[in-house]
Amino acid sequence: MTSLPASATIDDPDVLAAYSTDRATFCPSGTPRALVRARSLDDVVQTLKWAYANNVPVVPQGARTGQSGGANALDGCVLLNLEKLDQILEIDVEEQIAVVQPGVINATLAAAVAEKGLYYPPDPGSKDISSLGGNVATNAGGMCCLKYGVTGDFVRALQVVLADGRVMRTGRRTAKGVAGYDLTHLFVGSEGTLGVVTEVTVALRPAVARPLAAVAFFDTTADACRAVADHLGAGFRPAALEFMDAATIEAVSKLRDLGFPPGTGAVLIAQSDAGTKAPEELAAFELSARKCAATEVVVSDDPAEADLLMQGRRLVGLSFEEYPASLVDDVCVPRRNLAALVDGIERIASENGVMIATCGHAGDGNMHPAVLFDHSQAEAAQKAFDEVMRLGLELGGTITGEHGVGLLKRDWLARELDEAALWSHHQIKQALDPRGIMNPGRVINSTGTGRGEVDQRSF
Amino acid sequence: MTSLPASATIDDPDVLAAYSTDRATFCPSGTPRALVRARSLDDVVQTLKWAYANNVPVVPQGARTGQSGGANALDGCVLLNLEKLDQILEIDVEEQIAVVQPGVINATLAAAVAEKGLYYPPDPGSKDISSLGGNVATNAGGMCCLKYGVTGDFVRALQVVLADGRVMRTGRRTAKGVAGYDLTHLFVGSEGTLGVVTEVTVALRPAVARPLAAVAFFDTTADACRAVADHLGAGFRPAALEFMDAATIEAVSKLRDLGFPPGTGAVLIAQSDAGTKAPEELAAFELSARKCAATEVVVSDDPAEADLLMQGRRLVGLSFEEYPASLVDDVCVPRRNLAALVDGIERIASENGVMIATCGHAGDGNMHPAVLFDHSQAEAAQKAFDEVMRLGLELGGTITGEHGVGLLKRDWLARELDEAALWSHHQIKQALDPRGIMNPGRVINSTGTGRGEVDQRSF
Repeated sequence: MTSLPASATIDDPDVLAAYSTDRATFCPSGTPRALVRARSLDDVVQTLKWAYANNVPVVPQGARTGQSGGANALDGCVLLNLEKLDQILEIDVEEQIAVVQPGVINATLAAAVAEKGLYYPPDPGSKDISSLGGNVATNAGGMCCLKYGVTGDFVRALQVVLADGRVMRTGRRTAKGVAGYDLTHLFVGSEGTLGVVTEVTVALRPAVARPLAAVAFFDTTADACRAVADHLGAGFRPAALEFMDAATIEAVSKLRDLGFPPGTGAVLIAQSDAGTKAPEELAAFELSARKCAATEVVVSDDPAEADLLMQGRRLVGLSFEEYPASLVDDVCVPRRNLAALVDGIERIASENGVMIATCGHAGDGNMHPAVLFDHSQAEAAQKAFDEVMRLGLELGGTITGEHGVGLLKRDWLARELDEAALWSHHQIKQALDPRGIMNPGRVINSTGTGRGEVDQRSF
Repeated sequence: MTSLPASATIDDPDVLAAYSTDRATFCPSGTPRALVRARSLDDVVQTLKWAYANNVPVVPQGARTGQSGGANALDGCVLLNLEKLDQILEIDVEEQIAVVQPGVINATLAAAVAEKGLYYPPDPGSKDISSLGGNVATNAGGMCCLKYGVTGDFVRALQVVLADGRVMRTGRRTAKGVAGYDLTHLFVGSEGTLGVVTEVTVALRPAVARPLAAVAFFDTTADACRAVADHLGAGFRPAALEFMDAATIEAVSKLRDLGFPPGTGAVLIAQSDAGTKAPEELAAFELSARKCAATEVVVSDDPAEADLLMQGRRLVGLSFEEYPASLVDDVCVPRRNLAALVDGIERIASENGVMIATCGHAGDGNMHPAVLFDHSQAEAAQKAFDEVMRLGLELGGTITGEHGVGLLKRDWLARELDEAALWSHHQIKQALDPRGIMNPGRVINSTGTGRGEVDQRSF
């Protein structure tokens, strides 16, 4: 095979330009040579065989909702887009698994399995627009992860096309299995740098009750952080435990007046899907909140009301679009350092003269501080963004809890990993992608594609 | 460094012989050159640096309770035993994590965290004698995995010494994190072939209620298997759902009369740790069992009685020691094929003229058919053992649900994996252990140690 799949290949420059970026800010993108919109496994195989033979970099793409530039075009690359591989191939009720193509949208899968009395928990903020392939590539999280775990915890098996076009199956359909190395979880979170995921087998759970929720308002972020520790320390695992600071409340309130009490310094929202035990869980949350000086706590009586209480949290992403530019971070720290993180972020914002709105998955210690700025502040915003990552590492945390490294955080990954771990990354990359054609320069600063070291910062 | 750590190194042939095997049957072991009983990270580092420099194979060992020969000596190897690295370094109640050395016994950790109101769920049958390092090396399962997951689901971070003696940290202490490749889960289940685990950080859960249990008796294994499907299909996830066939009941009854009704063809035992909801869960189990023609169902009222009901299941391992020899298998199939697996095993036993007692984790489809035989039947026993694995694969399952590949199932792994997956295994092995000194010939038929292909079958 000596060509890209003709019927799936596009070289119209306007289309190429439209497909050349994901949702990351400050991430350069190059000019691709072609876009392949794969409609079959064969399209993927043929694309990789051609790219491998010709030493051409390949950038796999799903719905391009990523936050780290991992799907941005490289100069001369083939963009291998998988959004048309969007079939739910199987929902096996008895085995509680589903088999899907990578282009299936997260919420589409969740709704389809719900119709059969099952539940797919991973719920990234992008769930209505992001695809399972992208969720797998970044090991996406979400609100329900506190109780149920992240995407990787639900992936049982993958079909992967390797760099040279060979098709590989990893994992298994069974509930357990330890035959050989865990290739499945090596590919989960590898952001298209080791191969292309063309099929995903996920585990499902029995359906849960529609959640109830409670919102607690605090004067200070410190009080809210203490309430998180108190509630979880009492042995509860709510289905979500979300945090919003004053700047986030302000941003959301510009979009819609949700009647937040004036002067609120922080908000916590707890969700419980424990059915008949949900009122008890939420009462315990209220107790923790009041113990930690909550000024007001509102507890829902029914799922529809609970849905309203979550509305403020769900509007956060949209509210940032009202600002000229935003840089959304994704640090995760040990829970006991949550207050120190939030404090430090306020200091970083003030020192750099930018606004940072912080919200996130407090129960997991995973915060999304968003630098909101206008373009004249780009340098200060980038500096603040970097300082938040430095702070996260200083507090024993990680630079990314669920968004991935991509290009945006590549240089920071080298600070998080020790020398031997970084070496292991390069060895594994070289082992599985010896010509370095798979999304080169993302996650790690790989070499390959016949062009020596790939540094996209200079593209 | 040019020597093994003197104070930790033993070369007494009797001691070496005693440490040369794990609990696998039919697995050859070689004659080691030395045993290092590591008491510190430095001992491990020094051992590997010496072995790397001198191209000497290293076989890491924990408590040597493995079932697959993965810790058996190789000719001329260094046995690197980690059982003296047995400290619980930290139990962090607020973060719900523990940091342990690899020699800590599973039950010791479970008891220590229970004292602090926390719970470490993975509970392999060997929990009283197996170590965390070995649990990690094989990704060990257990009864509670149906509800809570296997060892790997609880491993957050590792300290690993690589083949050349460099120390690497993988993963993180935080609840979430996607920075870079998932090296943690690449090492979990890698059976000492990629490096030596010297520290494990595990996630804990809030304590659960002491379990209640119910036992159901059936005339046929088919009825019992239908009851498994019915109960799980109704949306329940019991804390355990165990199966024993007539041959297992017979073996256990030789050890102790547990008053099983005469003529019982199969037993199911369900456990619930759902606290106030446990009676409801067990009532649902009873309903499923009776619907599927259970001849009798006994439901416990209190945890002490529940403990008695589990006694039969817990005696299985001990009861096999009454037979001259046993070969314990570990296949896992999709749950809907459980009845076909059990049926097929009975056929295999009959065709080969051996006794096979089957019990296991029915809720996960993970069965442990044990070939019980005297030494004159060794060949037939091995044949039956192999046929059980073939059947497991034919039924869409795996050759090992929780025991690992080791040496015992190495040739079968090559049948389970496709060509590209096997290639990936070899590439990763070569990438991380370029001289092939780490437990060579286990899991995959690796080359290295300056001796060309290692084939221990001929040792």
